[in-house]
Amino acid sequence: MIPSPFVVIGPGLLGGSLLHDAKRLRVPQVRAWVRNAERAREILQQGLAEAAGSDLRELTKGARFVVLATPVGAGEEIAAELTRCALAPDAVVTDVGSVKLRVLDGAGRILQKAGISFVGSHPMAGSEAKGLGAAQPQLFRNAACIVTPDSATSASTLAVVREFWETLGCRVTQMDAAAHDALVARISHMPHVAAVAVTLAALRQDPSAAQFAAGGLRDTTRVASGDPAMWEEILTDNRVSVAQCVRHLQSALGEVLEILEKVEHGRLRSLLQQAKSLRDSRYAPPSQTP
Amino acid sequence: MIPSPFVVIGPGLLGGSLLHDAKRLRVPQVRAWVRNAERAREILQQGLAEAAGSDLRELTKGARFVVLATPVGAGEEIAAELTRCALAPDAVVTDVGSVKLRVLDGAGRILQKAGISFVGSHPMAGSEAKGLGAAQPQLFRNAACIVTPDSATSASTLAVVREFWETLGCRVTQMDAAAHDALVARISHMPHVAAVAVTLAALRQDPSAAQFAAGGLRDTTRVASGDPAMWEEILTDNRVSVAQCVRHLQSALGEVLEILEKVEHGRLRSLLQQAKSLRDSRYAPPSQTP
Repeated sequence: MIPSPFVVIGPGLLGGSLLHDAKRLRVPQVRAWVRNAERAREILQQGLAEAAGSDLRELTKGARFVVLATPVGAGEEIAAELTRCALAPDAVVTDVGSVKLRVLDGAGRILQKAGISFVGSHPMAGSEAKGLGAAQPQLFRNAACIVTPDSATSASTLAVVREFWETLGCRVTQMDAAAHDALVARISHMPHVAAVAVTLAALRQDPSAAQFAAGGLRDTTRVASGDPAMWEEILTDNRVSVAQCVRHLQSALGEVLEILEKVEHGRLRSLLQQAKSLRDSRYAPPSQTP
Repeated sequence: MIPSPFVVIGPGLLGGSLLHDAKRLRVPQVRAWVRNAERAREILQQGLAEAAGSDLRELTKGARFVVLATPVGAGEEIAAELTRCALAPDAVVTDVGSVKLRVLDGAGRILQKAGISFVGSHPMAGSEAKGLGAAQPQLFRNAACIVTPDSATSASTLAVVREFWETLGCRVTQMDAAAHDALVARISHMPHVAAVAVTLAALRQDPSAAQFAAGGLRDTTRVASGDPAMWEEILTDNRVSVAQCVRHLQSALGEVLEILEKVEHGRLRSLLQQAKSLRDSRYAPPSQTP
């Protein structure tokens, strides 16, 4: 169930995909807040919301469910404005940011102090694509979504947010914001830094080398094609955990270097086998992707 | 043009795909050398060669073009045996190994000393898939192929090998074996080590974290799913260049760490932008791959 009136604030890839799903599920009273008037017209033309525009007070009047989908930095200002809006008394607010401590300490606290129920969410369904144009129905289907309750979160607020993501097809897990941030540093932010560093180390001195690269470099560096402004914010917001994981990556590279320098055959193969097993236990080995 | 009799030695993914292309192009007198009798039957049943088996002397009688497609380590033994076979006087031998100095110093010198024309090749069309079962027609279409002549290579030998790969649809370039090895260390072997190290750093301590990982970790680590035995050989054979590139990768990671620790916003974004531009100039940014 998706409570409504349902308001998406700042629909880009993620928020726009929420609008697509709400349309698909015939949720009544869906509204979208966007600064840009042209964007608002697009949303209305596509039938993605019954109201769209930049008047936050008007759009959130009586709202029962609000998703903050702006960049995290913009979320605090919006949260402060929301405290002056007339949401429904049982309204629940969540967000879709990639770093949860930052959101909790910012937008979350602002809302909670004003008596508005907030709990953070992180649906793991992003991509290098960005913007409303890349939004699509079913983006969240089978995605993992981590909900991050804190001591201020009531059981009913948590239940509303969990059910929202489950309705969209997510596998929902909950953990506290710090555990979330440490986890995504390991499985998402550090691999992003690795892709950036591989790109720089491979191509910075001689970009023409790229003409000889095949699918290996393409896939290893794919995420480095992501939006620099968005990733600057994510990496900076989660910098302590990210830095720790990057140091783990440097250690793993150091292990390989040490083995290569000593020409320790068996050890290299067992390290390669260990990596293969860890990877293949999550992802089926690609059958044929040259 | 593919000179024939044409013999593929050790058809796995690459050699088997050569057989598929030879069939497609109706090359006469195609032969395959395999140790395993079951594999030989498969090749004959699929009509991939008119003769297949483990009798190297019989299979190479009068051969005008021979491709070594075994693992590099096995190639030297085969090369020594080839010097005792009755190839055609104008026979040309090439290989498909990923590290060219090792092949040139091993199989290459053995053949050249016996008066057999050899020049190394590296068609860049591998994948995590391996074995004859993964072989397919047109695998080499649009792939880069680097041919590595040395001072012993005649112009006619070089022309035969270049034309062979061009016939299969490769973009052929030539450079010496040392330049080749330095290049592939940067664009293929170092990224492979990075994928292995990312996998270890992300999942070694707690493999269950993988359940939350999405397309980013999947693609960044894809090549770590490759055959450990094959990659042990490649990384060991090219260890000097690989180690140097892994150190460049560590430096690039160090740059990111330093920026994160100092919270230098603008510098992080410009580094991310630089990586994105370098990557996107070779590969189109993925439009939508969540």
